[in-house]
Formats: sequence, structure tokens, C-alpha cells
Amino acid sequence: MDKLIVIKIGGNLIDDPNALLPFLESLAALPERKILVHGGGKLATDLARKLDLPQQMLSGRRITDAETLKVVTMVYAGYINKTIVAMLQGLGANAVGLTGADGNAIRAHRRKGEVDFGYVGDVDEVNTRFLTSLLEPGCIPVLAPITHDAHGQLLNTNADTIAQEVATALSIHFEVELIYCFEKEGVLLQADDEGSVITSLDRRYYEDLKARGAIFAGMIPKLDNAFDALRRGVKSVLIGKGARLRELHEGGTGTRISHEQ
Amino acid sequence: MDKLIVIKIGGNLIDDPNALLPFLESLAALPERKILVHGGGKLATDLARKLDLPQQMLSGRRITDAETLKVVTMVYAGYINKTIVAMLQGLGANAVGLTGADGNAIRAHRRKGEVDFGYVGDVDEVNTRFLTSLLEPGCIPVLAPITHDAHGQLLNTNADTIAQEVATALSIHFEVELIYCFEKEGVLLQADDEGSVITSLDRRYYEDLKARGAIFAGMIPKLDNAFDALRRGVKSVLIGKGARLRELHEGGTGTRISHEQ
Repeated sequence: MDKLIVIKIGGNLIDDPNALLPFLESLAALPERKILVHGGGKLATDLARKLDLPQQMLSGRRITDAETLKVVTMVYAGYINKTIVAMLQGLGANAVGLTGADGNAIRAHRRKGEVDFGYVGDVDEVNTRFLTSLLEPGCIPVLAPITHDAHGQLLNTNADTIAQEVATALSIHFEVELIYCFEKEGVLLQADDEGSVITSLDRRYYEDLKARGAIFAGMIPKLDNAFDALRRGVKSVLIGKGARLRELHEGGTGTRISHEQ
Repeated sequence: MDKLIVIKIGGNLIDDPNALLPFLESLAALPERKILVHGGGKLATDLARKLDLPQQMLSGRRITDAETLKVVTMVYAGYINKTIVAMLQGLGANAVGLTGADGNAIRAHRRKGEVDFGYVGDVDEVNTRFLTSLLEPGCIPVLAPITHDAHGQLLNTNADTIAQEVATALSIHFEVELIYCFEKEGVLLQADDEGSVITSLDRRYYEDLKARGAIFAGMIPKLDNAFDALRRGVKSVLIGKGARLRELHEGGTGTRISHEQ
């Protein structure tokens, strides 16, 4: 099977043009097929504030009302997505920016539950045929964290989840490596010590660290996603700093999430 | 050759959700292959005003400075483009929203001249291979009026021009009909009389009407574009009301622009 790298980046790269360009250079230089998934960053929050749009939070999570959906669609699918695509084109990499609505790439449904988070989507299906048709001639799909419900409604969707769902779905066609880029060197044993990177983390060690409260709460959904991806067919999952993408990919830095040993 | 319809819509449809949905229904119902090109509408102006972004005008045209480019990229490529794509998906039509940067669909250069209009692009090349690869399996490309220069820069580009350039370039692969939808029933002999539609307009009649000052100034670039498209290989050009798309396409309404007789 051909190799495919699915890379997720977040606000720390998106908000810093001085970091984004070298990151995209190292991405474009990787010879394998690749898909880039980006999150949001500060821009949506900044725009909502400038528009005097009150941001409702519930259980520490943002509610996506109709006006907020408009803002995140503008910022994520418009400004961030097209800026990245144009930068990649400038580097000679043929990128195609997509939301889940484009080509029905990712179908989702509005999240149901006791708490109404508004226009937030949970992924139902990734259109592997469409994404593969772009990957075959060497395009790099660049996915914004917006999906649709196939009934005309756009939905705000977590970028980590999109990366995991896309990586998992494409594991039937490719040998997939999933790379979560964030602001740290990897999963750290001590939150404030960049030298305490856990180089390899299997499920048992993870459960042990969780039980001891040694995993930063914000990392838990990301790591749960990572183990879930491995269980569902993704070949390898790496977590580390976007600025070190090449080393991460080559195994010289970051945290490798591994199956039970 | 297979038929292809390239349809351009502007603010009057985009700004009115009650008009947009039935228009998209009639678009989705056309059995031919199709490409939709959309303009901007009031939303970008509204957002610029809300953000206290002064809009500089020069010779009656808007200057696209860096902040204005950000606004139009958010509104055109983000909100409008993805709203249309999601609505088409909801109607069972497999749309893919694109700027010129996506898949290098439309390469342009920054306009040079005595007046600096800022980040405004004039089209150099349409990637017919990429657009055809989407049309073949039945996708509807939905093009936002944003292009790129292939060196990393996004550029604000006139939607009428994009429609004409795309229609012209694809005339080597398809028998192309170009439809400009606007707020009137067609090209009118009396600007305020919707009953005065010119049903057929050839170059000689057009030059005659222009010489007599009988063509509304705002129509002149659109009509120049239309004749240029015919000269460059487009099979037919129609101008009329978006709400009557099916009748327009069937020749029952609107203005047909025709070659010299």
C-alpha cells in the first residue's frame, strides 16, 4: 500500500506567519502523499469580539450559534484555509482547500445530547473516493474544521477529530501515519519541562499516567483520539512540534503512540 | 462535444436566501454539466463597515488593500462559497467550492497600471484539466471570485471575468453556454422597463446602441465580456434573471448575445 501522512495543525502555527511558512515548506518537501487538517486559532475569537458577538460557553466549551457558525465559516474555510492553500501553491505544492461540504468530503450530524452546543457536528462518514481522487494526481487536500449534514447545514467540527476520522477512513487504501502538531515537543511527563518528552506511549502506560493524574487534561481527548485511530487501522500516530515536522516523521523527536506491547 | 453551462450569479441572488434556494434548485435540475461562479454581494461591504475598515474608492472602483482582501476572502471564499456548496449538497448536487488557488484552478497576476487597485487579479490561465477532472464524475465546481498568483498571494478578481475566462478556456473540451444572471429580465432598451428586453443582440446592434447612449453604463463591461467570450469559442451567451434560469437556458426569456449575422 502507498503511504499517506495526515497532519493536523492548530492555532500555534496558524496564528504565527513566521512559523507557518517554514512548516508548510517542510510539509511540501515530504515525498509521501499527504492531507493537512487545520484548526482555528485566535482569529475567529478576535473576529467575534470585533463584531460584538457574545461567545457563550457551556461546560468550558463554546456554543456555535448561527452567527458564530458564520464567523468560523468565514475564518476557517475562508481566510485560514485559502491562505494556507495559496502559500502551498507558492511553494509548488498543488493544494486543494476543502470543507466537509465540498465534494461531500465529510458528512456529519448535529450533536445531540443534554447540552445543546449549537451547530456542532460529529462525523458520520469520510468520502474516501473523493479524497483519493485528489491524492492520486498528487494534490494535497487541506481540510478546514467545518463539515455538513448533507441537508444543507454547515457544522463546526473539531479538527483533531477530523484528522482522526480521515486517517482512519483512508487506512483501507493507504498505510497511514497520523501526525498531531502542537506547541510542545511531544507528550510531556512534566507539563513545564520540554525535556520530559515521552518518546513512546502505549495504552497501558497511558492508563497508568492518567490514573496518576500525570497527563495534562487538555491532552486526554487528543490521546484518546490517537489510540482510537490505531485501533481502527491507522499505522502510526505521532505527536509533537510542527516546527520539527521532518524529524517527527523520521522518528527523531516527539511522542510515538503505539499499540499494546 | 458534451455540453457545459457556466453560470454567473451576483449579489441580488446571494443576498436573498428566499431567491437563492429556488435558483439553486433550478440549477441542480439542469441535466448538463455545469459550473457556478458567484460574486460578492453586500456582505463584504457590511463586514468591512462593522470592522470600521475604510473602503477606498478610486475611479468608482474599490481598492483591495491587505485588510480588505482578508474580508473578501472570508466572505466570498468562506461564507458565501460554503453556504452555496452546502445548499447544493442538500439538494443532492455534488458541489465543490473553489478559489483560483485550489488546485491552481485560476492563476492571475496583480493588476499593474497607473492606478494601484491593490490586491486585484487579472486572469492568466484556467486549469482546464483540474476543472474537467471534477466535471467528469458529475461534480459542480462553485467558483468564488478570488484567484492567486502562484507565488502565495490571493487576489480579488471580478466574477464576470472569471465566468468568461472559465467558459472560454473550457470551450476546447465542451460546447459551452455562458449565462450571466442578474437582477433584470435581460438587456433592456429602456432601463426602467422590464418589458423592453432585447431578445437578441449582435455586435452591430450593440455598437449602434452604445453609440446612441442606449446601453446602461454598468452593462458595458458585461456585454464586452460576452462578445469576447463568443469570439474566443464559447457557443452561446445568455443574460437574464436568475429566477428564470430554466427558461433562460431554454431560450424563452432573456437576451441572447449572438455573433455578427
